[in-house]
Amino acid sequence: MSDRVVVIGGGPGGIEAARQVADLGLPAVLVEQRERLGGTPIFANYAALTPYFANAEEAMDAMIAELAQRGRAEVRTSTTVTGLSGEAGAFTVELSTGERLDAGAVIVATGFDHFDPGRERQIYNYYQYPDVLALQDLEAQLKEHKVVVPSTGRPPASICWVQCVGSRDRNIGNEWCSKVCCGIASKQAIEVRKLSPETRAYIFYIDMRMYGYWETQLYWPAQEQYHVQYIKGIITEVLERGDRLIVRGEDTTMGRPMEVPMDMVILSVGMEPSAGTKAMSDVLGIERNRHGFIEVINPPLDTVTTSRRGIFACGAALGPADLEDTISSAGAAAGKAVALVRRDNLAVA
Amino acid sequence: MSDRVVVIGGGPGGIEAARQVADLGLPAVLVEQRERLGGTPIFANYAALTPYFANAEEAMDAMIAELAQRGRAEVRTSTTVTGLSGEAGAFTVELSTGERLDAGAVIVATGFDHFDPGRERQIYNYYQYPDVLALQDLEAQLKEHKVVVPSTGRPPASICWVQCVGSRDRNIGNEWCSKVCCGIASKQAIEVRKLSPETRAYIFYIDMRMYGYWETQLYWPAQEQYHVQYIKGIITEVLERGDRLIVRGEDTTMGRPMEVPMDMVILSVGMEPSAGTKAMSDVLGIERNRHGFIEVINPPLDTVTTSRRGIFACGAALGPADLEDTISSAGAAAGKAVALVRRDNLAVA
Repeated sequence: MSDRVVVIGGGPGGIEAARQVADLGLPAVLVEQRERLGGTPIFANYAALTPYFANAEEAMDAMIAELAQRGRAEVRTSTTVTGLSGEAGAFTVELSTGERLDAGAVIVATGFDHFDPGRERQIYNYYQYPDVLALQDLEAQLKEHKVVVPSTGRPPASICWVQCVGSRDRNIGNEWCSKVCCGIASKQAIEVRKLSPETRAYIFYIDMRMYGYWETQLYWPAQEQYHVQYIKGIITEVLERGDRLIVRGEDTTMGRPMEVPMDMVILSVGMEPSAGTKAMSDVLGIERNRHGFIEVINPPLDTVTTSRRGIFACGAALGPADLEDTISSAGAAAGKAVALVRRDNLAVA
Repeated sequence: MSDRVVVIGGGPGGIEAARQVADLGLPAVLVEQRERLGGTPIFANYAALTPYFANAEEAMDAMIAELAQRGRAEVRTSTTVTGLSGEAGAFTVELSTGERLDAGAVIVATGFDHFDPGRERQIYNYYQYPDVLALQDLEAQLKEHKVVVPSTGRPPASICWVQCVGSRDRNIGNEWCSKVCCGIASKQAIEVRKLSPETRAYIFYIDMRMYGYWETQLYWPAQEQYHVQYIKGIITEVLERGDRLIVRGEDTTMGRPMEVPMDMVILSVGMEPSAGTKAMSDVLGIERNRHGFIEVINPPLDTVTTSRRGIFACGAALGPADLEDTISSAGAAAGKAVALVRRDNLAVA
């Protein structure tokens, strides 16, 4: 029997879950495969968080610092989980370091991977043309407070985002909507226009999924204050002509084909189950859904309970999620894990 | 000093929060102004929950039954909160019954109201034409396993949904996107087509915001299995001609005006701050955001902490939220409330 909760994955969801377990009075161990905490916002070089434009590195550092203050939360970096035995209330978790941890419950916070636009075939010539980037490539520039065309080193006269790359697409097997890319592209377009007011910015989309406050935090200001141009259209190909890129497709509102020269094209790549999510679901013996993310067994009224008792999951390990989804589900998972351990181990009615 | 957590609002978020507080070992009191628990899914007669089609009444009854098993969770129905004094860790909560409860923390789960399409002016003649309904009016029919034109009592040959009624609309002061209406309209269209396969179903939309798995659970099946017709367009008016309704607007994809006869028109009304949300934010002395919902002070990395220490909020009291948002944020709020009480009152380091 153990009252410890092991949390797997040191991004925003895992940090929040571990902190909350500790605040609820139980010991937590946070296991992260990389050499430091922070997860995708750090390792994919996010500039500002969507939709309130907080500095991503500062925000993650603050979360990490807060966690470090919790005596009951330990961290194991450069470590993976290699095995699980036992059952809820009395698991044994094996780590790549040889350490064995007893645990009453486990929380999986292994997140997502960005869709790779060269995974099966070249999509929009991402790997061929230096000036075709993905969302996270532009984030890295924005984090350095710049926006430059890679092939010239100068700010672009024109830039566009192509939405739904690796999302809503049966050909590549990703039927789901990745939920956050409309907001992130809009956030980036605002940042680009702030950094380089001369740059013309276009977003080619199928549906602009700016739900809730993203509408007011991002979509209205992008159009009205920053004059980002939103064009409902399908982009069929991105080609090179001379020193510029040519974006070809159909403007579905105008009902006509379009061919637009651009200095820089950003692919709004979607979310896929991360390698860690797939590996951990195997190690832990929990079900994945038909999309490859971890399955919750009783949605929508339980958002974190997996198919194996005592194992909970949160954030983008479960499917497309924004940061607020991740933080909320991490808190919910921590609560359910602690409640289960209390019930099973601490004999509290 | 008190280790009790008072939860205000007996819908899905409040029930989940109260259950979680109890499961985490502290006493909870759930205060609901109506005569029974269940909230909007019960009182607005929801048929099936989005996006997995669980029976809403059965699902809510199961939540309520689970709460009732928790010895540490008490319920006060037909009761409102009329006053709050003290501070975090040692609040006194006054109830309309005269009862005074000490509490270490408070969770606000007062939810949303459906936008009223006659609030300021007649929108689409909702109050004038019997065959123009709102989402919740159709839910009440679907809950009785029927879909009928009110003026005739017969199934409609044609039905349409008009999206964004009371959302994304500055004229009426609601700038936000209500997030769930695209999914709910699609869910209803599937239910209508199941109940009445002869009925032609159309959804007029600006952007189809079917984020995450709603894309695969609802949007693909609605089109492929149930042949719901999605038309990107702006509806300007709904008129009567003879015994049918005439829906007028612009088909923005085809770039031409349209005038379509319909037997039944469903207004996809959005979410507004509920009367209870507004009243409780005044009573509790917590800030509202510029949209009138309760403000969280550090989004996106804290989704539940309000402007007054010791008071947390969850679900649609904070803004447009789907059921999964609500359940996750309720769990997160319960965790933060219990952690604060532990820290302040139970002197656990």
